Amino acid sequence: MTLKVGVIGTGTIGQDHIERLHNRLAGASVVAVNDIDRSQAERVAERLTPAAKVYDGGQAVIADPDVDAVVVTSWGPTHEEFVLGSIAAGKPVFCEKPLATTAKACLRIIEAEIASGRPLVQVGFMRRYDRGYRQLKEAIDRGAVGQPLMVHCAHRNPSVPESYGGDMALTDSFPHEIDVLRWLLNDDYVSAQVIVPRKTRHSRSDLDDPHMILLETKKGVRIDVEIFVNCAYGYDIQCQVVGEDGVANLPEPMSLLLRKNAKLSHDILQDWKLRFVDSYDVELQEWIDSTRRGEVLGPTAWDGYYTAITADACVEAKRTGKIIPIDIRETPDFYRPALAPRQLRRTG
Amino acid sequence: MTLKVGVIGTGTIGQDHIERLHNRLAGASVVAVNDIDRSQAERVAERLTPAAKVYDGGQAVIADPDVDAVVVTSWGPTHEEFVLGSIAAGKPVFCEKPLATTAKACLRIIEAEIASGRPLVQVGFMRRYDRGYRQLKEAIDRGAVGQPLMVHCAHRNPSVPESYGGDMALTDSFPHEIDVLRWLLNDDYVSAQVIVPRKTRHSRSDLDDPHMILLETKKGVRIDVEIFVNCAYGYDIQCQVVGEDGVANLPEPMSLLLRKNAKLSHDILQDWKLRFVDSYDVELQEWIDSTRRGEVLGPTAWDGYYTAITADACVEAKRTGKIIPIDIRETPDFYRPALAPRQLRRTG
Amino acid sequence: MTLKVGVIGTGTIGQDHIERLHNRLAGASVVAVNDIDRSQAERVAERLTPAAKVYDGGQAVIADPDVDAVVVTSWGPTHEEFVLGSIAAGKPVFCEKPLATTAKACLRIIEAEIASGRPLVQVGFMRRYDRGYRQLKEAIDRGAVGQPLMVHCAHRNPSVPESYGGDMALTDSFPHEIDVLRWLLNDDYVSAQVIVPRKTRHSRSDLDDPHMILLETKKGVRIDVEIFVNCAYGYDIQCQVVGEDGVANLPEPMSLLLRKNAKLSHDILQDWKLRFVDSYDVELQEWIDSTRRGEVLGPTAWDGYYTAITADACVEAKRTGKIIPIDIRETPDFYRPALAPRQLRRTG
Amino acid sequence: MTLKVGVIGTGTIGQDHIERLHNRLAGASVVAVNDIDRSQAERVAERLTPAAKVYDGGQAVIADPDVDAVVVTSWGPTHEEFVLGSIAAGKPVFCEKPLATTAKACLRIIEAEIASGRPLVQVGFMRRYDRGYRQLKEAIDRGAVGQPLMVHCAHRNPSVPESYGGDMALTDSFPHEIDVLRWLLNDDYVSAQVIVPRKTRHSRSDLDDPHMILLETKKGVRIDVEIFVNCAYGYDIQCQVVGEDGVANLPEPMSLLLRKNAKLSHDILQDWKLRFVDSYDVELQEWIDSTRRGEVLGPTAWDGYYTAITADACVEAKRTGKIIPIDIRETPDFYRPALAPRQLRRTG
Repeated sequence: MTLKVGVIGTGTIGQDHIERLHNRLAGASVVAVNDIDRSQAERVAERLTPAAKVYDGGQAVIADPDVDAVVVTSWGPTHEEFVLGSIAAGKPVFCEKPLATTAKACLRIIEAEIASGRPLVQVGFMRRYDRGYRQLKEAIDRGAVGQPLMVHCAHRNPSVPESYGGDMALTDSFPHEIDVLRWLLNDDYVSAQVIVPRKTRHSRSDLDDPHMILLETKKGVRIDVEIFVNCAYGYDIQCQVVGEDGVANLPEPMSLLLRKNAKLSHDILQDWKLRFVDSYDVELQEWIDSTRRGEVLGPTAWDGYYTAITADACVEAKRTGKIIPIDIRETPDFYRPALAPRQLRRTG
Repeated sequence: MTLKVGVIGTGTIGQDHIERLHNRLAGASVVAVNDIDRSQAERVAERLTPAAKVYDGGQAVIADPDVDAVVVTSWGPTHEEFVLGSIAAGKPVFCEKPLATTAKACLRIIEAEIASGRPLVQVGFMRRYDRGYRQLKEAIDRGAVGQPLMVHCAHRNPSVPESYGGDMALTDSFPHEIDVLRWLLNDDYVSAQVIVPRKTRHSRSDLDDPHMILLETKKGVRIDVEIFVNCAYGYDIQCQVVGEDGVANLPEPMSLLLRKNAKLSHDILQDWKLRFVDSYDVELQEWIDSTRRGEVLGPTAWDGYYTAITADACVEAKRTGKIIPIDIRETPDFYRPALAPRQLRRTG
Repeated sequence: MTLKVGVIGTGTIGQDHIERLHNRLAGASVVAVNDIDRSQAERVAERLTPAAKVYDGGQAVIADPDVDAVVVTSWGPTHEEFVLGSIAAGKPVFCEKPLATTAKACLRIIEAEIASGRPLVQVGFMRRYDRGYRQLKEAIDRGAVGQPLMVHCAHRNPSVPESYGGDMALTDSFPHEIDVLRWLLNDDYVSAQVIVPRKTRHSRSDLDDPHMILLETKKGVRIDVEIFVNCAYGYDIQCQVVGEDGVANLPEPMSLLLRKNAKLSHDILQDWKLRFVDSYDVELQEWIDSTRRGEVLGPTAWDGYYTAITADACVEAKRTGKIIPIDIRETPDFYRPALAPRQLRRTG
Repeated sequence: MTLKVGVIGTGTIGQDHIERLHNRLAGASVVAVNDIDRSQAERVAERLTPAAKVYDGGQAVIADPDVDAVVVTSWGPTHEEFVLGSIAAGKPVFCEKPLATTAKACLRIIEAEIASGRPLVQVGFMRRYDRGYRQLKEAIDRGAVGQPLMVHCAHRNPSVPESYGGDMALTDSFPHEIDVLRWLLNDDYVSAQVIVPRKTRHSRSDLDDPHMILLETKKGVRIDVEIFVNCAYGYDIQCQVVGEDGVANLPEPMSLLLRKNAKLSHDILQDWKLRFVDSYDVELQEWIDSTRRGEVLGPTAWDGYYTAITADACVEAKRTGKIIPIDIRETPDFYRPALAPRQLRRTG
């Protein structure tokens, strides 16, 4: 009854997921892996799951008859191929974000999944599994703040590596907020605007930072998100939902209150992985559980597509300085939960 | 050596100021008052400053040779007349906000004051005297957060009376932020944008609420301000300054931490007057002290004009849905502190 | 390689642990259970672990050759018998608190375990596995507050059931602090004093509540603990360590910050099980992992004995109104970690 | 109608009070001063109140017919003499703490004041005038936490000067808590116990630090107070009142919330004078106002005596290691407010 998983890509996140799936969570074992660097895959397997087979290609992992389900943690541009391959093989697949590197590619996955006739694809938006966001969603859903009217967010990193450039604030950092806010509000977007404030001296000369992004939803909720990836002081995720009857804040991570050196202080995390480490555990445990029951309850390919479309609109909004409409067709029935109660269970 | 003050207008705020000036602060006495309702002025004088003369008109208060300085707390549309009258009489005048009801009227006051050759006019923007805002400004000025890049604000009232209508969110509530943020950042505005989110059900059918206002400054700082005057839960002023090196929040008012009924809570004030009661004391004490020395150190007529121009731009921005430039001539030398150090002392 | 566990006692905590071990944590399955009410044990097994054998007695569970390790969650007075039985069978045993109902019984277990020649017994003090306490211990161990000098604690329940009576504040509630503070400070106790403040009207006429307990440690640290089991407002555990260089507080559980109804508030939990639900998961996962490696890293039988001795001293201190010495022989070598580094691992 | 005040002693606190009374508060002027160092008194007068007379002795200040009321801020051992002198002259006197250096001397003052037939003496316990303590008292008085059962306090200084020695933790620091807690609880003490924890390495070899003091009140409330005068990190006053229905904490002083350098922090004050600077203003303004009305509403000579007796009991408790009863005769009618409502006004 254990879910036998094949993992494609054994880089940092791949190794983390193998360790989770095979050694920490209940109900799964990792039976096959591969990486573009075969010897690296062998070393990882040796260390974490010695009995697993090591393949030369991702499609071979998918094809292994022992593999019940696939986890894609390879380089972004290869995601489409392996997700489509899993669908073709009729195997459930968990794909780290992004689902694919273009909206068009996401659409091809959607079409393939719909054509296959059953839900197979889950996308790795881990924030939906964070305890704080779940408390926030629970409060909104039970009406604790009344109807949401505005959301104020900040997404701050202490700094970014050299490889972080161009529009990655919009296409790589912001997608976390794009997905989690749609889920939080149970709403869709209609337009995006991007503002570029004075640049911090801590950013490279070729990188705009910070950004302010404004979204409008179908229900008229207005969202402002600060993306500030060289904020210097720490990794900090803020989210405040302003409703008709009250205002709720995403909880701060639990930490010691220290009185020392003339300060009353809490430590702020520096590493995003520590901030969401528990979320990954919950995410993959729920994926194991639902996959064993033949369901997809987490973020779907449609969510991956919606995120890509929204990020594209932000890039366009920044380029033009205009408010860009986000025009997307109706959610296909395939991705629409039959009943509101199921939708809640689906997402939370 | 006591500053003898005449107060024009003995409504709520007038009575508060008479009580402050005459009975609580040091160095002033109220020697003359008037109100459009003479019998009301008499009752107020009887109760708070029995020796004061009661006049039939504001100009008579100004003309009283015993009166060293004037406080204008009458109905807004009469402010221009009494401020101009004080300037004409060469007497220092403290005018509650607004300085005048139109930018043009503010300009007439500026011209009269400059023509008079010496600084006489102070405008009642009390937030500059709030201990929290002063802590925030002190932190910014000593570089605690580095160069400011963004400011996130919220201005929330539990509810508003029937008399609060039209664009008053922009022309009556927002001016507090307009003034205090210019002072906090030591910067000026270049454009305004106004967004109207989904309306709260707690607002009247003829009143938009909430609003989101976006300002850009000369230095490129981006400001977002939520004005939400039917927020239901309390009077709440938030201000977060995001700088290159850190982020500082306006302090919450001091209050008990209570554990009771399954909640760990602080009370939130309901009444804006309680929130800024100390600020009024500090404001008027500093006004007494500087007036006795022949100086104007608080918000000037220019600050009153700048606020009016910015509020007008917001009204236009809301009407058109566009980003409206705020085009204002250079600060006249008359209103420019000779030296940076003096400017700090001037405002803070 | 899965650890096959037998569970003795299928009451509330027994069921929770079966669910954890069998369905949620990694590396264990529950293969045998029993309860004094056999039909209840059958229903629990049917629901949570249908393949498990159901026995008539606890000793039969221990004797089952399929059982690698034993979990004792039966009624307190039966603990001694089943722990001794497990030791006799040479099987690792996790025993919920208390280890036994008297210090003498704890000593019999210690003697049996030492005689058996290898560590087998772990006691269920789950607070050592709480993330907050671990953050606090980590801070103390790395010297963040310098040498501890005082500890101020509060242990509050909203109310207690009818069955909670007599000295249970000292013998049932307080043992959690007794154990976790010894571990936190890496220290032992030398005396206890008990003070009985004015009684809350919310307590029954036959139940003293609250209590203040004062402990002194070998290193001279002074501890005060408020035990208040009818505090009305919630389940609340406070711990502040005052050191030479700073003061650290146990973190509050993560929760939404809500602005509503004139309050800025966090919810306070009502149920102690929710407060420590994660601790139980960590505790049993670590127990599974260390047991599979043949180690006991958690609280030992000696810790269970030390707690019993200290609680007895508190009862005596309350009865006499005196400061009662806690006289206990040196920690046997068997329970003494060989090296300081191992001790840290042992406890953390 | 201005209250003409004579100030005896122009050291640091004397200068602060002269500045307050003469230049900042309403309704008083300082017309006479003296100091044991006459030239110092002359310089202080010159700077702060040039028109004041400078006398050679404190009794001459009291005797000056221009002096309506006396403020005693001289060296502690001289307080008795000048308070008795003021009573003899029938003049209201505000005496900084301590009222006198022994309980016996306090008793002589009490007897003289009662014999004089009218209330004249107020003692400078400024905490009763702190906004935070007043919020706390207001909450207790309106029953927000129900009947108080326990109070947990901490009184921490970053360090103390060489001159701070012997039992000053008990006789100099602790009296602030002794007075304010009696007032807060509207209760009296019946016993004291003193515990000496492990000593901080930051204390001198001849100075015990910290101390834990336990008080019991007539109503059975149990109070624990940590006095830690070399706590290293800052000046920090904590007070938590545990009642039948809830728990209230003394508010933290208002301060910026800063995110910087991996910390979310508030500054902690280092200087006790900054912590209570506002309290002194309120205290002396209320003293001016009540003195002009012929009343004593603040801490009385009886409160000064009660504090001395309690501090003496603490010294005895520390010396003997025993619980020492605090046996004091009934409050004389002279110091007993006629009605409960007046008592509230009296103290708060």
